Amino acid sequence: MVGRSGHDPEEDAGSPTFSPSAELPPLSPADLGMLRQVGARWQITDTVRALPVDPQAGEIRSSAVGGAHRAAMLFLPDAPGQLTATPVVERPDTAQGRVAGGLRRLLLGRPLTSASILRERMSKVIALPVLASDLLSSVAYGPEAMLAVLVLAGSGALGLSLPIAAALVVLMVAVGTSYRQTVRAYPHGAGSYLVASDSLGPRAGLAAAAGLVLDYVLTVSVSVSAGVAAITSALPSLAAYRVPLALVVIGVLLIGNLRGIRVAGNAFAVPTYVFLVAVLGLIAAGFVRAATGGFTVVAPPPTPAVEGLGLLVVLRAFASGATSMTGVEAVSNAVPVFRPTAWRNARTVLTWMISILIVLFVGLTLLFHLNGLVPRADQTLLSQLARLAFPTGPWYAIIQAATALVLLLAANTAFNDLPRLLYFMARDGYVPHRFLHLGDRLALSNGLIALAVAAAAILVAFGGDTHSLIPLYAVGVFLAFTLSQSGMVNHWRHHRDPGWRRRAAINGVGAVLSAVVLVTAAVTKFVEGAWAVVLAVPLLICLFRRVRRHYDHVQQALGLHPDHPSGVEPAEDAPPAIVPQQVRHLFLVPVARLNQAALRTLAYVGSLGQPALALHVSPERTEADRFREQWNTWGDHIPLETILSPHRVIIQPLAGYASALRLTHPDLTITVVVPDVVVDHPWQRVLHYRTEQRLRRALRRHPGIVVTSLPTHLTR
Amino acid sequence: MVGRSGHDPEEDAGSPTFSPSAELPPLSPADLGMLRQVGARWQITDTVRALPVDPQAGEIRSSAVGGAHRAAMLFLPDAPGQLTATPVVERPDTAQGRVAGGLRRLLLGRPLTSASILRERMSKVIALPVLASDLLSSVAYGPEAMLAVLVLAGSGALGLSLPIAAALVVLMVAVGTSYRQTVRAYPHGAGSYLVASDSLGPRAGLAAAAGLVLDYVLTVSVSVSAGVAAITSALPSLAAYRVPLALVVIGVLLIGNLRGIRVAGNAFAVPTYVFLVAVLGLIAAGFVRAATGGFTVVAPPPTPAVEGLGLLVVLRAFASGATSMTGVEAVSNAVPVFRPTAWRNARTVLTWMISILIVLFVGLTLLFHLNGLVPRADQTLLSQLARLAFPTGPWYAIIQAATALVLLLAANTAFNDLPRLLYFMARDGYVPHRFLHLGDRLALSNGLIALAVAAAAILVAFGGDTHSLIPLYAVGVFLAFTLSQSGMVNHWRHHRDPGWRRRAAINGVGAVLSAVVLVTAAVTKFVEGAWAVVLAVPLLICLFRRVRRHYDHVQQALGLHPDHPSGVEPAEDAPPAIVPQQVRHLFLVPVARLNQAALRTLAYVGSLGQPALALHVSPERTEADRFREQWNTWGDHIPLETILSPHRVIIQPLAGYASALRLTHPDLTITVVVPDVVVDHPWQRVLHYRTEQRLRRALRRHPGIVVTSLPTHLTR
Repeated sequence: MVGRSGHDPEEDAGSPTFSPSAELPPLSPADLGMLRQVGARWQITDTVRALPVDPQAGEIRSSAVGGAHRAAMLFLPDAPGQLTATPVVERPDTAQGRVAGGLRRLLLGRPLTSASILRERMSKVIALPVLASDLLSSVAYGPEAMLAVLVLAGSGALGLSLPIAAALVVLMVAVGTSYRQTVRAYPHGAGSYLVASDSLGPRAGLAAAAGLVLDYVLTVSVSVSAGVAAITSALPSLAAYRVPLALVVIGVLLIGNLRGIRVAGNAFAVPTYVFLVAVLGLIAAGFVRAATGGFTVVAPPPTPAVEGLGLLVVLRAFASGATSMTGVEAVSNAVPVFRPTAWRNARTVLTWMISILIVLFVGLTLLFHLNGLVPRADQTLLSQLARLAFPTGPWYAIIQAATALVLLLAANTAFNDLPRLLYFMARDGYVPHRFLHLGDRLALSNGLIALAVAAAAILVAFGGDTHSLIPLYAVGVFLAFTLSQSGMVNHWRHHRDPGWRRRAAINGVGAVLSAVVLVTAAVTKFVEGAWAVVLAVPLLICLFRRVRRHYDHVQQALGLHPDHPSGVEPAEDAPPAIVPQQVRHLFLVPVARLNQAALRTLAYVGSLGQPALALHVSPERTEADRFREQWNTWGDHIPLETILSPHRVIIQPLAGYASALRLTHPDLTITVVVPDVVVDHPWQRVLHYRTEQRLRRALRRHPGIVVTSLPTHLTR
Repeated sequence: MVGRSGHDPEEDAGSPTFSPSAELPPLSPADLGMLRQVGARWQITDTVRALPVDPQAGEIRSSAVGGAHRAAMLFLPDAPGQLTATPVVERPDTAQGRVAGGLRRLLLGRPLTSASILRERMSKVIALPVLASDLLSSVAYGPEAMLAVLVLAGSGALGLSLPIAAALVVLMVAVGTSYRQTVRAYPHGAGSYLVASDSLGPRAGLAAAAGLVLDYVLTVSVSVSAGVAAITSALPSLAAYRVPLALVVIGVLLIGNLRGIRVAGNAFAVPTYVFLVAVLGLIAAGFVRAATGGFTVVAPPPTPAVEGLGLLVVLRAFASGATSMTGVEAVSNAVPVFRPTAWRNARTVLTWMISILIVLFVGLTLLFHLNGLVPRADQTLLSQLARLAFPTGPWYAIIQAATALVLLLAANTAFNDLPRLLYFMARDGYVPHRFLHLGDRLALSNGLIALAVAAAAILVAFGGDTHSLIPLYAVGVFLAFTLSQSGMVNHWRHHRDPGWRRRAAINGVGAVLSAVVLVTAAVTKFVEGAWAVVLAVPLLICLFRRVRRHYDHVQQALGLHPDHPSGVEPAEDAPPAIVPQQVRHLFLVPVARLNQAALRTLAYVGSLGQPALALHVSPERTEADRFREQWNTWGDHIPLETILSPHRVIIQPLAGYASALRLTHPDLTITVVVPDVVVDHPWQRVLHYRTEQRLRRALRRHPGIVVTSLPTHLTR
């Protein structure tokens, strides 16, 4: 059922797509040898192989079942010993079930088979908008976040935005160049997690992963709240509904991704290009307008200083502005989706992206400064600028709509990337294995759901306010950048290809600058919320390691132990019987009343021909005697032990007796066979003692006791 | 496990105490005959009786288990085939568990054995306070509730309290006399439920029961809120905390009753007598004070009329005042606790109680009128009167404390009576059988908990305000009175003993007057909240009947069917195998990976020597082929069928295949054996697929499929 994958990150780093078999990795040769040894010792009677059915008798259908189950299945023989299961038709037995099933199909579509996994490749013209939406959309909130910090020191401090922007351009060029080298070095695609694990060891990989997990979750929260802000700037009447609106948007993104919308190039390209054209047009119009005014700087409305202007404010503004760079790593994750030569094309697109980013970022910052614009709670800066540049006409609406749309696409990149990251981490055993599972639409459903829930929770906690989310954002992003670039430095040092020193130097500069932003963001924004991220990163790392430790423990406990070829664990008092001749049975049958359910249970046990003991728990001696009389009337076919429970408890004596027998006879396999009355409706459960469930729960704690439930259905 | 009790209410009406064996009623002779027939057809091999253990080998202890279970047990042989289970020592493995266990013992005490059931009998002097607290404490809120309605018509209407009180005295005498006859006729004790069921049929019994259930729940809510009002009248600073205070009181009552405080006469007698003396003293002092003032009536403070004075207001005031009579039925429920001749002593005590009630009620109403007192939100009328009569000295505090205490005792009577009522109803199958269970302190724990939860919910919903609870109260009480008295009329008509006409007439008057109050309360207080009760009674009746119908269905489905002596149900496609030679086995073993857990499961199945088929669900053909290779390496000891699931679902194909086999071969008993990995900590569950739980849930819907869980513990 479980077990660590045993995959080596290095070996797998190159597989760009997902395999549905990742959940069931192959066995090692040592395991296979062990298997052969155990199998050689098996002794069973021939009756075991004498099947009373033909497992492949033509088409087998489970659909005829009268009602209670939902998904009917058709089993088609396919090879000797192999069937293919196909869901044929859903016939939920309740109207409710039909509606739920119909809605699910409507929203998510029909299940897809594994054969539908696509391995598309994109041209540069398509790849640019698909991969750039996260990066380019950042200019919708990055410059504004920078000005929002500066304005705290009074409107006079706003002029500092220009030198800070210049410093950020240097950072962009440095990080961009650095990533160009990553693309070349990892042509199979390399997220920061893989690069850092690969070059700096698993601890650094986990740190990068923790940063990225936070980054992706916050990308969704920030992009969606900024997208909603673009909408409410245009339609202020919606401002009161920004949180529900944002939740709806997250829900739509989740459903879209659960449907498994593949990287649908053309559809995704349009809004990004529209946004690009719109913002470039806005910048052009802004400069034309400024030129006609002789580039006179409009003084911003006087704002009283809340804080003194000091280095701290400048650094905070720098760190806030650096969020404009989020999304720059997208290309390096996705090298294999480019047409050949993939790495060369990817590098070109990365250069384009960085250049466009710099143009947009510098242009907008300059125009905000020239027009003396100040961040306002009810309207984004981009919206203010657009209203100034295009007081009439449809342009304003187009700019806002494109901004909102591109921000949603940016959120969507997180929906593409986080489940992917979790998949790779699950393969290494650092997050639950269920993140390996490809849903019935071939999407990594569990990762998508986890992301949507986390992002929605953060969004609600912060009231959907972009400005208060920004301080949390920068830390995670730049942690991943720093580790990824440092990893590259190590990578070059290891390989020592010609020119490695120059390459290491470029990545080193990227790493150092990223680290500066990371430390700046963590320190200066600590009080405003960065503390949560600074705390969350080590907590996440610790969690990942505990998960891994658990899987290692499971692997050790359930693995085939090639170290102990005898197959018998030396430690426990209970050697696990792994060949049939080691198993010595004792069946226990708790009987409360002699009714149909009890008689069927006794018949079941009797038919197995193994030693059996019936147990009856009685609150009073008279009742015990009466029961034994009934038992004798029936014929006393199975030995009966009555247990007097003067405190009237039922479950504890049964569980205690079974466990006591097991303790005194550790060589026995004790099976407790319990009748289970299955009711029609959930409300009726309260009318029954649910002995089966309670006994199973009590016995689950005791090792070595098998529980068999014999259902009796009350339906019809 | 389940099954209708088959008890006849008439036959059982006489059993005054509870039997722990009520959950396991005896079989009918027809059932026994059936049992003998089925038993005669049994054929099994001798191996079944060849136990590998001696079930009675000296003392058997389950305490040595290393940790995970809480209650250790000692099993002492007691007779051939019989053991007695005793909890020896609790050794929870966690500090948390130790604290919880210790707290439980501290609050509830050590478990008691069934031998501790007491059958105490009380003298009249003890019985009076024990049974009268509910009735007498009603004067703390009844007269006030009456005046609170009258004052709505302005302070001038308050004078009407005297004629209304006179009418209520007539009602008290009539109902009291009527109940005197009930005591005589049902010397074994007779709640309204039993009398109405017995004399008017089960429908009337259920109506009375529904009324009583509401009555008891509201008794707790009203008495506790009135008791808290007595405290906050004396200590106004506590007024803000009345709801939490009331919840604490309910909690204390619940714990006290779960401890199984028996009807501890002496302890209960004191507060009631103190209250009696205090209120009689208050009345005496009040009259002395009034006499010195020449019995001049103080005009009440002028209050503007909110409503016109009409018949409706008068009737509402009458119905509100009638809540002073709640608790009058206590004696008739409890006849057997009196010393012989029980019914004669009970009748005497009833007469005393009614007389005292009339004195208190009339005295207080007169004094409220003489002093011109008007209901106030911050202080009860009783508190106002006490402050007037005893401006200084400890008397005021004593009166308030005694009032609060006696009201809590009144709430306690509901804790005595409702679980009792539910016990009798459960024996008839109208409420869940778990209300039959005597807890480890011999209390009817489930009934107690249900009462506390319901009363607390109502109290919170009404903000702990006595006045708004009163309209709900009268309806349930007088419904039960009416049905019980009408039942008595029928009882006399049936038996036609000498003098039956006179007796029937007395009960008839009681019934008619109760019915008048019932209708008045339901109609006049409909809008204020009585609608909830008017709605709740038929809903409860409907619920009781549905519960009974379910138990009847279970009885029919699980009973031994003396009608079909063959023991084979004719209807179903799946004849339940109730003798071993009918059982044809097929074991299915889902295997995901060949690890220790899987090998143990295969060994378990192989050792049973029954036909077995292993199933492997594979998302891809390559994976399926790889698994088959592993299987062959192991030795292919059990036939393997791989199921290709192109949509990557696991549980559905397994459940579907099992159910499809069952459908095509209804004569087979299919057992699905699933390995179950048991983790140490609950958080680790999220790391596993929990195939065992999910598969069991899916298979539970399919009839005739047995599920066996083979646990593998990861602990240590």
